Amino acid sequence: MDIIIDILTTMVAQAQKPTLAFLIGGMVLAAMGSKLEVPAPVYKFIVLLLLLKVGMSAGISVRQADLVELAVPAIGAALVGVAIVLLGTVTLARWKGVAPVDGLATAGLFGAVSASTLAAGMAMLDGAGVAYEGFIGALYPFMDIAALVTAIVLAKLADQRRTAPFVHDGTIAMGGGTGGGPVLNGGMISEIIGDTFRSPAISALCLGLALGTFARPDAIFESFYEPLFRGLLSILMLIMGMEAWARLSEMRKVAHAYILYGLAGPLVHGLIGLGAGLVIHQMTGFSAGGVVLLSVMAASSSDISGPPTMRGALPEANPSAYVGTSTGLGTPVAILAIPLWMALVEATIGL
Amino acid sequence: MDIIIDILTTMVAQAQKPTLAFLIGGMVLAAMGSKLEVPAPVYKFIVLLLLLKVGMSAGISVRQADLVELAVPAIGAALVGVAIVLLGTVTLARWKGVAPVDGLATAGLFGAVSASTLAAGMAMLDGAGVAYEGFIGALYPFMDIAALVTAIVLAKLADQRRTAPFVHDGTIAMGGGTGGGPVLNGGMISEIIGDTFRSPAISALCLGLALGTFARPDAIFESFYEPLFRGLLSILMLIMGMEAWARLSEMRKVAHAYILYGLAGPLVHGLIGLGAGLVIHQMTGFSAGGVVLLSVMAASSSDISGPPTMRGALPEANPSAYVGTSTGLGTPVAILAIPLWMALVEATIGL
Amino acid sequence: MDIIIDILTTMVAQAQKPTLAFLIGGMVLAAMGSKLEVPAPVYKFIVLLLLLKVGMSAGISVRQADLVELAVPAIGAALVGVAIVLLGTVTLARWKGVAPVDGLATAGLFGAVSASTLAAGMAMLDGAGVAYEGFIGALYPFMDIAALVTAIVLAKLADQRRTAPFVHDGTIAMGGGTGGGPVLNGGMISEIIGDTFRSPAISALCLGLALGTFARPDAIFESFYEPLFRGLLSILMLIMGMEAWARLSEMRKVAHAYILYGLAGPLVHGLIGLGAGLVIHQMTGFSAGGVVLLSVMAASSSDISGPPTMRGALPEANPSAYVGTSTGLGTPVAILAIPLWMALVEATIGL
Repeated sequence: MDIIIDILTTMVAQAQKPTLAFLIGGMVLAAMGSKLEVPAPVYKFIVLLLLLKVGMSAGISVRQADLVELAVPAIGAALVGVAIVLLGTVTLARWKGVAPVDGLATAGLFGAVSASTLAAGMAMLDGAGVAYEGFIGALYPFMDIAALVTAIVLAKLADQRRTAPFVHDGTIAMGGGTGGGPVLNGGMISEIIGDTFRSPAISALCLGLALGTFARPDAIFESFYEPLFRGLLSILMLIMGMEAWARLSEMRKVAHAYILYGLAGPLVHGLIGLGAGLVIHQMTGFSAGGVVLLSVMAASSSDISGPPTMRGALPEANPSAYVGTSTGLGTPVAILAIPLWMALVEATIGL
Repeated sequence: MDIIIDILTTMVAQAQKPTLAFLIGGMVLAAMGSKLEVPAPVYKFIVLLLLLKVGMSAGISVRQADLVELAVPAIGAALVGVAIVLLGTVTLARWKGVAPVDGLATAGLFGAVSASTLAAGMAMLDGAGVAYEGFIGALYPFMDIAALVTAIVLAKLADQRRTAPFVHDGTIAMGGGTGGGPVLNGGMISEIIGDTFRSPAISALCLGLALGTFARPDAIFESFYEPLFRGLLSILMLIMGMEAWARLSEMRKVAHAYILYGLAGPLVHGLIGLGAGLVIHQMTGFSAGGVVLLSVMAASSSDISGPPTMRGALPEANPSAYVGTSTGLGTPVAILAIPLWMALVEATIGL
Repeated sequence: MDIIIDILTTMVAQAQKPTLAFLIGGMVLAAMGSKLEVPAPVYKFIVLLLLLKVGMSAGISVRQADLVELAVPAIGAALVGVAIVLLGTVTLARWKGVAPVDGLATAGLFGAVSASTLAAGMAMLDGAGVAYEGFIGALYPFMDIAALVTAIVLAKLADQRRTAPFVHDGTIAMGGGTGGGPVLNGGMISEIIGDTFRSPAISALCLGLALGTFARPDAIFESFYEPLFRGLLSILMLIMGMEAWARLSEMRKVAHAYILYGLAGPLVHGLIGLGAGLVIHQMTGFSAGGVVLLSVMAASSSDISGPPTMRGALPEANPSAYVGTSTGLGTPVAILAIPLWMALVEATIGL
């Protein structure tokens, strides 16, 4: 009983949190026809600051971690992020009526990580007296960036395939068995990957990561980027809410696909994370607490790094789809599922 | 003697305060022909942040107040705000040579509330050991928003009446006895009210109010909106100072009207507030300290919520008129008048 | 030995500092062809905030100083700043292949002052138990602004001279013996000086100075301008790094001139400061510690006030030249030279 009350209290608190409250506020404003707008140059700058901060924060964690110890779990985390996006590619993004770019952007967010869900998982383990590695915080950027970049590259490839002329000579067939679309040659693929890394969003994320890892931006991180972060995110959410409302009608016919994905995704993804965690546990003695937290990361969907990245890199994607599914369904389900991963790890290798 | 020295010290300190100092700085720059400018997109964003903060701050006060106890005084405060603007409509805004939009914007600021003057009033009551209700801080948004919205709607109506074609069928005559202008039908009026609430400034203010009342933005309010507020206000004042200088010449022929209004307004408005306070005291047992503070609010003129709201909603109004009269005359007079309301309440119902 | 290790540690720490790290980050992004950009309106606003802060900070120092005591050293500091720029005019800016505007912008930064180098000098004197005047912090704006304004005016004059038609009547020959260019009349010169003070950058700097000196912006300075400063500077450095990379190729043929200037400049300029300090010492009893610090200021080159000022006032100057030479060479040399000034003062008037 107490647990249910706890969960309900958490859900209400979640809905009143600035992130979701500003998103809803933006939708209400748009619904009422408000002429409020955030000028484009300011919006671009907000996204830049947010992504620099996300990257820097991740870089600082990586710098402070023991890189040797971190290596195997980090590769595992990145692979989990890629796997989740690939799974989304052949499920949600193929759903009849779902725009591929919307499905991929959503899968990207579900592959990426919610820092606050991870923090909730850590708090639960701490409460249960379960130990985990100190470098866990440094794992999440690997899953996060791997998932986001994979989703963006796949979305751009899908777009290219749709619009590219048919090419038959010296080409690599992409996604061979799954469709009969035109093929892309290797040069085009590497060009798209290059474009992705040169895009403002991924550039800013990677720049922040590099600065956090190799420089010592800690002082300005704490005096500037960190304090501004939540506030600027609230403005971003306001913008995305207004935009989401404007594009909500596009969702009407495929809402069930997103609802299904939003409810089932976190559970499936958590199992992928759990499997990877158990493998890493066998290989390196990764702790049981670490396995739980890898599952939590995999189950969680990005509420912070994802929206600005997708908005910057895939402006044509519908935020009603990816923000709505991720923040509205994925995050609550991921939070509620934390005890499940604890129970499954307890049942397999013991906590 | 000590009181006079106190007052003079307060006046000098007031002039050196960032708000007024940046306003004067902006005027000096404009007078010297400086090419300094704040880009329009940044300016719009600053106004958005300021109004979100003002609204949120008010909403948080309302959320924390006892709504049953608050109801009657809140209605009273809103009516006082409306009454002050209506009084300005038939006095300052009708003065020969005063542009109606300038007169109404000024009346709107005088109807709105200065949080710092209110704080000064509270400090004086505290010093004198006089008690007042804890919800007083939640009263001011009602007076503030009521006055600002009334002034904006009336200004838009006046503009419409001036430019609208004469309409004679199925219409309601507005401001019947006061002028022979064209008439407006009910649809147009409700459209103007709708437009006002959809305008960026009032949208932002109301969004902030709703977020503060129904969500829990307290953390980002304290970490982002509150710390940035004074600084962004200084930039706004700089902009308004430059603009005020550019439009100062328009004021030459009607300066005496604004000076008279700026000096007499606070006293007349304070008496309106006092009257309303005494009625509420009879109805609900509203405290004597509360009556003093309602008078202080009524006497005060907005130095924070008003300028960005008017600049956003009525860009054609001359800031030399409304900011100059409010910040330059209204606020000092309102601060100096606080002991008067204490003496009058003492003389009527006793402190 | 310990000293060398100290110095090396300092150098590495310097390179990891946010300022330089963001500059390098910007260059790397530009080199990789990133499409990241900071929108122009936001950039302009950042420069405005930075310069307001620099000015205000200087003004607050001046306000808190004893103006009578400050007068002679302040005039001396301003003259040193002007002298350093004039020296640059006849050396670096005349170098074959060096664009005059680039040479003058660089000389302006070397005439201006690095607050962090000054702080390092103060820390060394404190460590050695050497006393100095409390008003030293208020001296630096005089050298800083004098140098920056001189450099900008000279650059605009040089540009005018290059593009102006030949004028022969009632004119003053500028820079008589040094070249045979067209002459400028007095009206044009005063117009250029006026233009310089009306330019957004110098306007903002002087406005901040006036506000700091005559108003009391301390509260918003500490709550807004100061905390935002380092962070906004990091963004500026990112922008300048991207720009510097784009214009690095222009430097190829004249890099040796800048390297020579960057290495020798601080030493020569420090000697100018030392000479001026000894004169002031004779005139007013200026302390030996003060003489050291005047040398440190003269040797240092601006890493904070200078870049945004030059970028704002001389957009055509190449930041690869001035930021690179100043931040990359001038600042490290100036920091390393501090013990030299201590030794020279010790040898002349005793510490």
